[in-house]
Amino acid sequence: MTVLAAHRLQGAEPLLPSLQARLACRAGNAQQTAGVAPGFVQGNLAILPEKLAASFHRFCQLNPKPCPIIGMSDVGDPNLPALGRDLDIRTDLPRYRVWRDGELVDEPTDILAHWRDDLVAFVIGCSFSFEEALLADDLPIRHIELGVRVPMYRTNIACAPSGPFAGPMVVSMRPMKPADAIRAVQITSRFPAVHGAPVHLGLPQSIGITDLAKPDYGDPVPINDDEIPVFWACGVTPQAVIAAARVPFAITHSPGLMLVTDLKNKQLAVL
Amino acid sequence: MTVLAAHRLQGAEPLLPSLQARLACRAGNAQQTAGVAPGFVQGNLAILPEKLAASFHRFCQLNPKPCPIIGMSDVGDPNLPALGRDLDIRTDLPRYRVWRDGELVDEPTDILAHWRDDLVAFVIGCSFSFEEALLADDLPIRHIELGVRVPMYRTNIACAPSGPFAGPMVVSMRPMKPADAIRAVQITSRFPAVHGAPVHLGLPQSIGITDLAKPDYGDPVPINDDEIPVFWACGVTPQAVIAAARVPFAITHSPGLMLVTDLKNKQLAVL
Repeated sequence: MTVLAAHRLQGAEPLLPSLQARLACRAGNAQQTAGVAPGFVQGNLAILPEKLAASFHRFCQLNPKPCPIIGMSDVGDPNLPALGRDLDIRTDLPRYRVWRDGELVDEPTDILAHWRDDLVAFVIGCSFSFEEALLADDLPIRHIELGVRVPMYRTNIACAPSGPFAGPMVVSMRPMKPADAIRAVQITSRFPAVHGAPVHLGLPQSIGITDLAKPDYGDPVPINDDEIPVFWACGVTPQAVIAAARVPFAITHSPGLMLVTDLKNKQLAVL
Repeated sequence: MTVLAAHRLQGAEPLLPSLQARLACRAGNAQQTAGVAPGFVQGNLAILPEKLAASFHRFCQLNPKPCPIIGMSDVGDPNLPALGRDLDIRTDLPRYRVWRDGELVDEPTDILAHWRDDLVAFVIGCSFSFEEALLADDLPIRHIELGVRVPMYRTNIACAPSGPFAGPMVVSMRPMKPADAIRAVQITSRFPAVHGAPVHLGLPQSIGITDLAKPDYGDPVPINDDEIPVFWACGVTPQAVIAAARVPFAITHSPGLMLVTDLKNKQLAVL
């Protein structure tokens, strides 16, 4: 019997949708997190040994737009109570990526076998939160309309380095009409904990993007003649930086399969 | 002896720079208001007979981005105490434009001879206020660097009509690097009383502007390859609309020669 089923049998009050989502992951029943538990914050995951964690933490501190930390575990502690009730970072995501020396060596649905007492987990804000705010304001989001992944690009914007962690900022791109782009700047400025305002708009070549039709991650989307590309700092940045650093050991989430937290997106708004 | 000189002789406490500016206008000693009384709000002026004032007031209400009202007189009253101590709207601007049936018939330095008991004065926010906030954030403003007037363009964005008042929105344009444009959206969003956030950026043809080098008002400025044009609703809109309406009688300020008020620009920030 699953934890969720047991809970239901006890006739307790309904679980938060976010906890239900985590329990589904824990039970091995989760295929994705896009669209899961609307209104709740989802996060990117990066887990590093304590020896590297300080450098990575400083990297995030120096690069808050691509790497906004919304939660962090104590050393060796798989629970992050500030992010969710009964949250176990080892089991509560649908799928993980295990990295050794920069190589992807495993994509398990839990990391119980990989967990160590010296690991530190970082949860980093994700664009799902600000996309919800954009949609709530009736701003269309192309890749969601098309049911594909957001297009992401490596830029020529260098992140501030820290220890072994260095590399270019990765950005996500959403095409918008100019007036919508202005509104999107206003809306996402309210959410500094989930990448905040765009870092660039128009003129992709200014940030080293030569062909919008060929994203480095995700899927291409069409841009109409009356639209401009709007670029946000992307949570893929820390994952790309960790891979490029070829550190001996690291664990991340599998792209698009995030940690669902008990935080509400609206709680992250500064205004 | 001027009012200002008389005041000084009395050994009173220093006058506000804004009042000094108005007294200089009153004495006929003011050539311009750009750069005068830094930190104080300057405004566009529109004066109409009471019969037309209600329609114009509603026009402003319907079109707050180009026509943000920051002050309004009572019928026939040339004083606007909410905007400034000892303020006389008939004498306190450097130069006025008097319109009859849509024709410019006079450009006097005061309107004492034109004043009537049925006139209502509207003071409308001006981009000087948000430009001060942009400069304070170290965002370069091309036309100020070059010492020319801001370029302004008639657009294909129709204002909401009211009575005889109708016509296209006029916008001002400032070229900016994309990251600066994003920052400018944030900064000017704080100032809804002085046009607020841009109405458009990039893609001038989307709003009916075919040649940025040929502004309809003001002076052209160069746009570099790494810049995009950023467009704000402009206080020239109400003046253009009043002229186009060919109303029997109206008075406006002479372009660039504004009313200096005792309000502080920073007071207009909503955040």
